[in-house]
Amino acid sequence: MELQLPKGTRDFSPEEKILRDKIVNALKEIFELYGFVPLETPILERFDVLSSKYAGGAEILKETFKLRDQGNRELGLRYDLTVPLARYVGMYPAIKMPFKRYQTGEVFRDGPVASARYRQFLQCDVDVVGSSSMATEAEVITLINAAFSKLNLKVKIKANNRKLLNSVLVYCGIEKEMQEPVIISIDKLEKYGMTVVKNELKEQKIEETKISKLIDILNIAGNNDEKISQLKKILKDSGGLDEMGQLISLLRNTNIEIDFDVSLARGLSYYTGVVIEAFLSNGSVKSAVCAGGRYDKIISSFLGKGDYPAVGVSFGVDRIYDALIEKQEIKRKTSTKVYIIPIKTLNESMKIAQKLRDAGINTDIDLMEKGPSKNLEYANSLGIPFVAFVGKKELEENKIKLRDMGSGKEVFLDIEELIARLKD
Amino acid sequence: MELQLPKGTRDFSPEEKILRDKIVNALKEIFELYGFVPLETPILERFDVLSSKYAGGAEILKETFKLRDQGNRELGLRYDLTVPLARYVGMYPAIKMPFKRYQTGEVFRDGPVASARYRQFLQCDVDVVGSSSMATEAEVITLINAAFSKLNLKVKIKANNRKLLNSVLVYCGIEKEMQEPVIISIDKLEKYGMTVVKNELKEQKIEETKISKLIDILNIAGNNDEKISQLKKILKDSGGLDEMGQLISLLRNTNIEIDFDVSLARGLSYYTGVVIEAFLSNGSVKSAVCAGGRYDKIISSFLGKGDYPAVGVSFGVDRIYDALIEKQEIKRKTSTKVYIIPIKTLNESMKIAQKLRDAGINTDIDLMEKGPSKNLEYANSLGIPFVAFVGKKELEENKIKLRDMGSGKEVFLDIEELIARLKD
Repeated sequence: MELQLPKGTRDFSPEEKILRDKIVNALKEIFELYGFVPLETPILERFDVLSSKYAGGAEILKETFKLRDQGNRELGLRYDLTVPLARYVGMYPAIKMPFKRYQTGEVFRDGPVASARYRQFLQCDVDVVGSSSMATEAEVITLINAAFSKLNLKVKIKANNRKLLNSVLVYCGIEKEMQEPVIISIDKLEKYGMTVVKNELKEQKIEETKISKLIDILNIAGNNDEKISQLKKILKDSGGLDEMGQLISLLRNTNIEIDFDVSLARGLSYYTGVVIEAFLSNGSVKSAVCAGGRYDKIISSFLGKGDYPAVGVSFGVDRIYDALIEKQEIKRKTSTKVYIIPIKTLNESMKIAQKLRDAGINTDIDLMEKGPSKNLEYANSLGIPFVAFVGKKELEENKIKLRDMGSGKEVFLDIEELIARLKD
Repeated sequence: MELQLPKGTRDFSPEEKILRDKIVNALKEIFELYGFVPLETPILERFDVLSSKYAGGAEILKETFKLRDQGNRELGLRYDLTVPLARYVGMYPAIKMPFKRYQTGEVFRDGPVASARYRQFLQCDVDVVGSSSMATEAEVITLINAAFSKLNLKVKIKANNRKLLNSVLVYCGIEKEMQEPVIISIDKLEKYGMTVVKNELKEQKIEETKISKLIDILNIAGNNDEKISQLKKILKDSGGLDEMGQLISLLRNTNIEIDFDVSLARGLSYYTGVVIEAFLSNGSVKSAVCAGGRYDKIISSFLGKGDYPAVGVSFGVDRIYDALIEKQEIKRKTSTKVYIIPIKTLNESMKIAQKLRDAGINTDIDLMEKGPSKNLEYANSLGIPFVAFVGKKELEENKIKLRDMGSGKEVFLDIEELIARLKD
């Protein structure tokens, strides 16, 4: 047996796990602040659910881990949390709409492991099912803003509307069958620049006049209101543009200025209205740290019934983690506040540990009677901020020696003083 | 496509998930209070790791979900968190000992789904690796006690020692090859009573004199000290008995009285010393809600190297959940505190929602302009305690109507008063 992990999977050490948990807990707190409720669905799903026509699609299905149970039933590991949400909504018709749910959980994709793609990763989703009001998008964008502010990360939130993008393509005279590849090219604008996009469009044999019409629109500058009024002059009647105006106006209520970006597309068949991506304003993490949008057709197509307009976004925990590390977020190896070193006083030390824990202080204690220098090394290696030496002589005077591992300063305290000092 | 879950798996509705999260968070809090650190390992493990000689064993392997990645590598879904812990310890030799880690995570067993066995369930483990001191067992038992006290559940903690059980069998003259089946029978004492055990032993062709010697020992009554002194007279020299004495004495430091039970065995090859099971004192959940013990050989056998004495216990989240439901723990469908109903005041209402959220109050808002009576029904169905009506006329006087959904009482408040009232 080789001690190895499956390709594309990771262990998270205590140090990493503490920070990851902190991120996820901060996100959950914000989700609940915005009235979302948690849902948990199993990691195993029936393969026919995962592979049904309106589920993740052929590309994703190629990367789906497939297995069978002892009854030879075909199962798969979920590849996202949206298909399970659609299944859940279909199985429980009594759910009150709008259903504002969040879910965090592991998803699996058996894809190539190059360029930091993982085969198991944490998905962290909020979705509102059952509301077609534009206030839903405003609510979700406000939530994104609150979440990153909670994480002390500055973000720029970009938004666009797929209906608007369609109007633009129609206006430029792009034929129906060319709209998909053109949108894929436009989506590359932010990352690769205008020249690359232009060349791609030429390779797709789009006529020069159409390309220049399109580029003129993509080049429209100004603040959001200016962009909207310029687009209005060109496009005349566009539902998508009206929606963007409405969204921008609703967001004034929560003091959020999005970055309206006509080139933002986010893939193809999935989204039907507003699309959203959030980017960090600082640091080297350039990809979106949160993304999503409105998908009004997916759930009802998947279920083959009903009308389930929906808006949802995913938070990228791995990227947020990288950004916090880059910002030198303190990595802690333990949440232990004090480490008790008994010096031939195991019984008394256990009693003291109990008193500290009863007071809510995260306390560890040497169980192995290792001796002071080995114990200090242990506490130091874990970054525990305080060490308490419990010696026989000191105990007779009801004193415990507390050492601040940062400054090296030592003080003698009785148990009440010790509790008070550590509760700070 | 049928909308179904895989056999033996479950969805947890928001109502169920809120309570499950509450349990897990309470346990994590106690684990950290006792100096444990979190670890996360992947759900996928290499099949050769899961199936190696000293891993879970043949019985468990039959129930292991097996799959392959696109490189045709054999993988499995983890069936416990102990094999991953052993792998982790082997892969990271720099870990400081003792390694006090906790892990909560889904594990998978493709077993029969009868009698409420699930194929995916949450494992919640604490383990100390690297300490052979009896203070470790005392620490873990104290933690169990603290965890259930945090959950407001009264438990009885039973403990025994596998070395002692071996001494008892030797004393009774049970031959080596019969010790395993005899221990399995003894383990049934609590559940099925002495007659069943006696009959099983007879069926195993154990001689009458040996059976009656054994039963005399199992019948020893009295408090822990009395049991120990009686056993001492019979067994003379038993390391296991000395350890039990030591454990009982160490637990006096934290005021915990375990129930020393000579019949407690907990399976066979795994445990090497103290074994522990916690049972609820009240209610209909009769199986252990937490169980474990010392396993000094498993990790080093698995790794084929080193010396890794270990003590660990698992908490049964499903059973704890059932017990809390039985105790009528309030099930909440949402953690939302207030639901805002705009009456043609969407913009103003969004501003108010923002102020409440900025003040840390979990706030939901009608995004769909549903009208007051539908909105009240919605808030009521989710059990949201307060509803705030934002009407045009009231707004002119800076007033919001807050309705207590429990009492039906309504008051008019300005925004500061509203925040103060909801922060209570």
